[in-house]
Amino acid sequence: MKADLHERLTKIKVLVFDIDGVLTDGKIYLSGDEEETKCFFAKDAPRIAIALRGGLLVVFLTARRCQAVERRARELKTILIYKQELKEKGVKLMDELKVRFDAQPEEIFYTGDDWSDLYLMKQSGACATPVDGSSENKEIADIITECKGGEGVAAEVVETVMRAQNIWDKYSTEYKSELIY
Amino acid sequence: MKADLHERLTKIKVLVFDIDGVLTDGKIYLSGDEEETKCFFAKDAPRIAIALRGGLLVVFLTARRCQAVERRARELKTILIYKQELKEKGVKLMDELKVRFDAQPEEIFYTGDDWSDLYLMKQSGACATPVDGSSENKEIADIITECKGGEGVAAEVVETVMRAQNIWDKYSTEYKSELIY
Amino acid sequence: MKADLHERLTKIKVLVFDIDGVLTDGKIYLSGDEEETKCFFAKDAPRIAIALRGGLLVVFLTARRCQAVERRARELKTILIYKQELKEKGVKLMDELKVRFDAQPEEIFYTGDDWSDLYLMKQSGACATPVDGSSENKEIADIITECKGGEGVAAEVVETVMRAQNIWDKYSTEYKSELIY
Amino acid sequence: MKADLHERLTKIKVLVFDIDGVLTDGKIYLSGDEEETKCFFAKDAPRIAIALRGGLLVVFLTARRCQAVERRARELKTILIYKQELKEKGVKLMDELKVRFDAQPEEIFYTGDDWSDLYLMKQSGACATPVDGSSENKEIADIITECKGGEGVAAEVVETVMRAQNIWDKYSTEYKSELIY
Repeated sequence: MKADLHERLTKIKVLVFDIDGVLTDGKIYLSGDEEETKCFFAKDAPRIAIALRGGLLVVFLTARRCQAVERRARELKTILIYKQELKEKGVKLMDELKVRFDAQPEEIFYTGDDWSDLYLMKQSGACATPVDGSSENKEIADIITECKGGEGVAAEVVETVMRAQNIWDKYSTEYKSELIY
Repeated sequence: MKADLHERLTKIKVLVFDIDGVLTDGKIYLSGDEEETKCFFAKDAPRIAIALRGGLLVVFLTARRCQAVERRARELKTILIYKQELKEKGVKLMDELKVRFDAQPEEIFYTGDDWSDLYLMKQSGACATPVDGSSENKEIADIITECKGGEGVAAEVVETVMRAQNIWDKYSTEYKSELIY
Repeated sequence: MKADLHERLTKIKVLVFDIDGVLTDGKIYLSGDEEETKCFFAKDAPRIAIALRGGLLVVFLTARRCQAVERRARELKTILIYKQELKEKGVKLMDELKVRFDAQPEEIFYTGDDWSDLYLMKQSGACATPVDGSSENKEIADIITECKGGEGVAAEVVETVMRAQNIWDKYSTEYKSELIY
Repeated sequence: MKADLHERLTKIKVLVFDIDGVLTDGKIYLSGDEEETKCFFAKDAPRIAIALRGGLLVVFLTARRCQAVERRARELKTILIYKQELKEKGVKLMDELKVRFDAQPEEIFYTGDDWSDLYLMKQSGACATPVDGSSENKEIADIITECKGGEGVAAEVVETVMRAQNIWDKYSTEYKSELIY
């Protein structure tokens, strides 16, 4: 871990996740339907629930409207932001997060796997990319996750940030203790 | 095999399987449809049929209503229980199985891959997790299957339990002998 | 190659392929739709076309009605036989093939990956199973394909049989020579 | 790199990509729907956008009408050509590209993974095949991509050709510099 990373992680209040290649394996299933199919990973869900319980904001960020992403965000009770809408408004993500959630750039942890994430990774307090992320993303990432996109990246990021903040054990234990049905 | 595991396996009457990450690889395909898509494994089907033939009860357990799971349970003639319904009734799985099937905890074999399964794994007579299950599940599992979730976990569990009960050869041979069309 | 296998392969007139785990990877995608989704492999198609061109009959065999399989059989112009219908008629596959195509058991090459294929593999003139087929299938298979189910098993079987019959070069060259658009 | 390959790459004006096994992993998902599902790779999209920005034409070539392919071509703003239509018109691809885009064979880079691509690979100025392409394709390919079909083949081809033309840095840098939302 980089020298100051631990300290930077203690300041994080918002976890932003790119979708394709981070919450999914980057595969886009197309058929005759209007809507595309994306493949999410079951184990990310409880870890994101723990992040929310621990008071972190969780944001899913994607290029444009897509019902698959809307469903996943609704199920996991996360905030969904479309880049296309930011672009149309001419508002950058960091400003949007400042206005809506009073979050400063240094309070934001960004996870992305490709070029469209580079600018935002650099602007954020800390950032991660999956082990199969693009080489430019790996070069600037504070953390390269052990797992590939769509195989638990969000789970790994949540645990890493919450451990740095010393709140992982409390909230994960609490969460697990309720899973008795 | 743990010293007393063989003896515990001889008492098993009910096989409970978590769905996501056990009968599937934990991937959840979402599109514009109301319903999600899950991916099951063909080879699990005949082994579950043999378990039923051998007199074992087979239960699929999942969080909430899902047509994909309902179809799979119907096709394989297994019992489907929703955790959400248990929770709403305030009835724990072990009590539900006692009331409905007169099954004691020590007669239950539970297979699960993540945190929502930990409590039930501990309550059961014996338990398994896939090789790609969460680390906490692996720590408490009596058996870690050789295959990953969605690649034959149920098949492996059925054979292991029925071999311990000395009924595998009889029922699998009988089953195979009828497969002549 | 077993001592007499080459000679047995020269007699083959019919290639029978099980679907799940042979033409697919054994994964069954279920959603809210009535119909299940199966995943086939593009490269099998031209090899099956060459088999047909070389005068071999190609049969797809599966347990019961399924639109995915019907589409694949229609596209590849192969014969589709449902085991369920054979069973209802009380007619075994070998007898069906004898009546419909005047094919003797020794003229049949059967490829299957699991228990429901064992009887038919034993009855056939020669047989194959994918490298990820069940252990019983591998024990009795004349050929274990290099590739896994759903990744080119049919392609491999077609080439092996047609090479033994010394007709592979002729028909594959002819086929390729027409692919100029 | 073959001795003259670099020079041949400098002449390329059109990138032609076969679909199945190149832009996808060669898997064809069939269900009860009329339309088949194909699985594309997110990271190919920005690289193709850069190719277009750099003035290259990008053509998707496939056997016959398919809505999944039409959507992908529309989203990526590429040209879609159906082989079936060429065949019905009796027009070969090279002639079609000459008539429609004034492109000579030596200005065409073709990427294909199987037999239906062999003729066109040989006619083109330069050609590639994925690392899991058929052996005949690998024998004649100028470039064998590091990644498998459906895992970034187009991305790799675009970068290779544009680097040879010394326009990669300019256009990729320009493209990335706009990704700030």
